[in-house]
Amino acid sequence: MEKAYVLGVDIGGQTAKCGIVNARGEVLAQSILVSNTHTEAASFVNALASTLKKLMSDAGLEGQVGGIGVGAPNGNYYTGEIKDAPNVTWARSKDVPFAKMLSEAMDGMPVALTNDANAAAVGEMTYGAAKGIKDFIMITLGTGVGSGIVIGGNVLYGHDGFAGELGHTCAVRGGRTCGCGKQGCLEAYCSAIGVARTAVEWLEQHPEESSLLRLRENITSKDVFEAAKAGDKAAKEIFDFTGNLLGRSFADFIAFSAPEAIVLFGGLARAKEFLYEPIVKSMNENVLAIWKDKVKVLFSSLSESDAAILGASALAWNL
Amino acid sequence: MEKAYVLGVDIGGQTAKCGIVNARGEVLAQSILVSNTHTEAASFVNALASTLKKLMSDAGLEGQVGGIGVGAPNGNYYTGEIKDAPNVTWARSKDVPFAKMLSEAMDGMPVALTNDANAAAVGEMTYGAAKGIKDFIMITLGTGVGSGIVIGGNVLYGHDGFAGELGHTCAVRGGRTCGCGKQGCLEAYCSAIGVARTAVEWLEQHPEESSLLRLRENITSKDVFEAAKAGDKAAKEIFDFTGNLLGRSFADFIAFSAPEAIVLFGGLARAKEFLYEPIVKSMNENVLAIWKDKVKVLFSSLSESDAAILGASALAWNL
Repeated sequence: MEKAYVLGVDIGGQTAKCGIVNARGEVLAQSILVSNTHTEAASFVNALASTLKKLMSDAGLEGQVGGIGVGAPNGNYYTGEIKDAPNVTWARSKDVPFAKMLSEAMDGMPVALTNDANAAAVGEMTYGAAKGIKDFIMITLGTGVGSGIVIGGNVLYGHDGFAGELGHTCAVRGGRTCGCGKQGCLEAYCSAIGVARTAVEWLEQHPEESSLLRLRENITSKDVFEAAKAGDKAAKEIFDFTGNLLGRSFADFIAFSAPEAIVLFGGLARAKEFLYEPIVKSMNENVLAIWKDKVKVLFSSLSESDAAILGASALAWNL
Repeated sequence: MEKAYVLGVDIGGQTAKCGIVNARGEVLAQSILVSNTHTEAASFVNALASTLKKLMSDAGLEGQVGGIGVGAPNGNYYTGEIKDAPNVTWARSKDVPFAKMLSEAMDGMPVALTNDANAAAVGEMTYGAAKGIKDFIMITLGTGVGSGIVIGGNVLYGHDGFAGELGHTCAVRGGRTCGCGKQGCLEAYCSAIGVARTAVEWLEQHPEESSLLRLRENITSKDVFEAAKAGDKAAKEIFDFTGNLLGRSFADFIAFSAPEAIVLFGGLARAKEFLYEPIVKSMNENVLAIWKDKVKVLFSSLSESDAAILGASALAWNL
């Protein structure tokens, strides 16, 4: 590709973050678009295309952008489809030929699509906490729990392009029903929504204990984080529980790919001060002796929107 | 390497199988050596070296063998060490610099070492059920439960060379103590020893039910297999239980690397007629919708000793 700029798009359950990136990996301009108000993919794609066009024209870079890299839940690198993404209103229970649709709406500009967590992993490896690390597992703790697995410096796509769905490995046998329909998935416990569910359960199970969280009507993971910062015991126990489940799942992930590090990213990863210790303790208690105290747990050092946009944009340089 | 032959050695908990292999992948001669009577690595290495030398001289191929490929539990491809292998009497709780020791005992012949399950995976990919499959997971059901993960046609070694210890992922939280010291490992339930433990537990828990297994003093997995073939209800339930645990673990493995197939190998895989259905049922019940009824479960089509020897020998061609 000879153009000097690419577009990076990170699609989440709530919003899509877009940016123009130069060859040095700088996000020159960015824009946020609401995603969850759309129920039809075509409507979202049109809104996204007009946002991207405005971004280019505002920056005076029309004609200088060579391609678009997109990270999205259940995005398939091989086929360009978003396949039944339960957390995305316009891609729930359907397969959306997203790369093709966006390319058409962008007058034929080439589009590369991958899983949002894979995109974040590429961003983190190129610019962030995983710089110089060739073997790591990126875990994104957002609306859902995603993962991007990097082996020898390459993202693992697997036979069908869907490798790295660690949010849907079983954390608790016979546990909570997950958005995917299965029971006990890591995502049902350790996503933002999962932490909020834990909080509601905790309050029900401990009627005698006081907590700042009792003052909230619809508890979010952010409420739990703020309560923990204010010293709330219940909130801290909720993070201990969450960290413990993450750590013991990480122990099993390590037995698979023997990574140098596990990198945490996403909204919930901001609660590092409450998650780090229970994660590391539980991971080392559950891992095979050869890996005890050897695998790093890192938290993303990039701003969330930057990492995701940069990671997605990195795909576009190869178009 | 210019020599026309290589040696392949497959080390298990009970025995070591050795063979001379030609460039067409034919095992020209083989020999079996007892492994579990040795408590010192040096003593085993000497016995192995003399067996290998005899194998070469009996075949009249002295001077025409270019190297030795070895598959062993906890064998590390990067370092040439066997690291604390609980099922190997002479490598329990210690790190054995095996490749170096064997090379010295073989007058400097080059030695490449890997995990026994990785070696079996290479054998199966080159000559067996996984021929032409680039992304698969090999599960060895032997004295222990091992695994070899193949991604894009290459064995996954990970950051430290120990990737693919799926036998020590957690199958049952807080479950049986495994030989590795952890609780609830897949190996504690689905190895030959694990199946025998299940049988003992089953008989204790169902004192009212008759079973051919009650006639046995020290029940082995082979006894369970034979009882199942004779129509014993208890034995069939034990295999259902084992297959169910395997299948739900496989569902989580699929979420990691999205393989085309899972290939089963080893002594217990002979019980295909009793394991296949419960494995496939439980795997498809526990896997994310995108993989339901899509991932093949294959049983090794090679004779056990051949696959392991061939896989190990394949390493030696690159020496």
